[in-house]
Amino acid sequence: MDEKEIIEAIRETFRYQKVDLFDDVAHLRGGRNHLVLKIDMFVESTDRPPGMTLEKAARKAVVACISDLACKGATPVGFLVSMGLPRKYSGEQDLKLLLAGLKSASEEYGVRLLGGDVNESKELVIDCAMVGRADRVITRGGARPGDVLASTGPFGYTALGLRHLLAGVDVPVLLKEKALFSVYEPHPKLGLCLRLVGSGLVTASMDSSDGLAITLNEMAERSGRKFVIEALPVEDGFAELCAAAGLNPFELALHGGEEYEAVLCIPKRRWAMAKRLAEGLNQPLFPLGRVEEGPAEVWYAPPGQGRPVKVKQEGWVHLA
Amino acid sequence: MDEKEIIEAIRETFRYQKVDLFDDVAHLRGGRNHLVLKIDMFVESTDRPPGMTLEKAARKAVVACISDLACKGATPVGFLVSMGLPRKYSGEQDLKLLLAGLKSASEEYGVRLLGGDVNESKELVIDCAMVGRADRVITRGGARPGDVLASTGPFGYTALGLRHLLAGVDVPVLLKEKALFSVYEPHPKLGLCLRLVGSGLVTASMDSSDGLAITLNEMAERSGRKFVIEALPVEDGFAELCAAAGLNPFELALHGGEEYEAVLCIPKRRWAMAKRLAEGLNQPLFPLGRVEEGPAEVWYAPPGQGRPVKVKQEGWVHLA
Repeated sequence: MDEKEIIEAIRETFRYQKVDLFDDVAHLRGGRNHLVLKIDMFVESTDRPPGMTLEKAARKAVVACISDLACKGATPVGFLVSMGLPRKYSGEQDLKLLLAGLKSASEEYGVRLLGGDVNESKELVIDCAMVGRADRVITRGGARPGDVLASTGPFGYTALGLRHLLAGVDVPVLLKEKALFSVYEPHPKLGLCLRLVGSGLVTASMDSSDGLAITLNEMAERSGRKFVIEALPVEDGFAELCAAAGLNPFELALHGGEEYEAVLCIPKRRWAMAKRLAEGLNQPLFPLGRVEEGPAEVWYAPPGQGRPVKVKQEGWVHLA
Repeated sequence: MDEKEIIEAIRETFRYQKVDLFDDVAHLRGGRNHLVLKIDMFVESTDRPPGMTLEKAARKAVVACISDLACKGATPVGFLVSMGLPRKYSGEQDLKLLLAGLKSASEEYGVRLLGGDVNESKELVIDCAMVGRADRVITRGGARPGDVLASTGPFGYTALGLRHLLAGVDVPVLLKEKALFSVYEPHPKLGLCLRLVGSGLVTASMDSSDGLAITLNEMAERSGRKFVIEALPVEDGFAELCAAAGLNPFELALHGGEEYEAVLCIPKRRWAMAKRLAEGLNQPLFPLGRVEEGPAEVWYAPPGQGRPVKVKQEGWVHLA
């Protein structure tokens, strides 16, 4: 069974609980607001590309959880970390790097380490559980016709970086630094997401770390709406440089993964306000399409570019 | 660096937070009571002895967290689980066993699955993060002179079971079933602990899964008191049967580990009440010694059995 089938089996086993186990975060009522919880496992053999230092690996293990809380507009409060360490990393130097990574994520996002567990294992495993607070619950399934589809960052860089690191693919020189940086050091836009959700501008959201195509399909399915991509959320010049190098920007942007950006649905009448909010924080907010009535599918249909193409739910799936 | 040194390095790195990162559970204020959090990693190569089914492995990953919440008198509410699965366990049959184990722990202790993460890894890793609620905070360091030292279960069985499973040591036939059961299926005494702590009878507590000697030494150190063991917390006949088989009951009870019982400090004047409470629930409560003024050390000094022996902080330490 692959990751999707396993998740379905877990849903089935615990269906009697009547809780959605696999939205980005879990919710519990806690005092005046919602307690938000997330767990995410970093496994060296699948999640650490060549060249990623132990410091960046530990940082990423924490940041992956931040990304899930961010997309829901939940303020991270603290995290617990379980480390499975092979003996080769139990020396003082490597330990210092791992702890520096945890600390840098902790300081960057203002989230405290609350506790942990240290174990011996065959490969490096860093599992992070994060707790936060939210005033409201934003699901993946709240999209409404007329909503603008938006993302907090450009797509395509990590796919480019990973192809370079894992398969030796040549990357256009002007894109290389950003491509590698996006792989080694993801930066979820916590501040922007907190403002957008806190201002009531978001009807549905999801972290994009499984890839944009999977994210949009999952949101379309949960929302029971049709999602139409009108423009790839890529930076100016990205598509042209990729195409010139024989790389497909559509593939890179939609079927990559590991982007750690939020994909958000924003009502059309609120879009100008959302855009101003992002500009005020000096953060990008990419409009990439719209939500329509219709079957729960994702279509790529940039105006004036021929026939719409159906976007499949393809990207990174563990154990596939 | 071994587990203890690594934990010290983590404490040092995050000392500025002024939080004890490695008591049994972490605390957050949450509404009217305390939110309690715990993370614990089960790693196949270190935590799964021969003969432990995948169902019992998954059950134990959850139960290990229950044990930490139980000893603090915290009511478990829900848990998140990260699974790292090698391909060999990704088939439907093995998955069913793993999920059955999660479900059985969930039902046995009334704790809901809240969410999870599924990954591919080189060996089976099940990391469980649990959240609960508590009306008060019981630390490892609250022991006071005159307190009775007690445990919620007998010690020695798991050490016996593990020696049999890992080293082929012959186990007295009358102890074998309990020894194996204690390894494969630990049962923290949640109900008893909730009553004892809830009735204000506990000044300090700790989960004993690192072994009794480590647990008592840690509590003595955090409390700045002397702990005196007057009687091994073993079942009637255990010591005699072990001795007759050439096994050392002192070693088995003190330097084993994986017991998942609570070690509790209970003021002497409250002891009779604690004992009645346990009897009312049909649960054992073993008195094993007393807390005294004096240096933070642990001594074994059963009345009328010669010179006291200092008990070293020895037991299971990862990466040692």
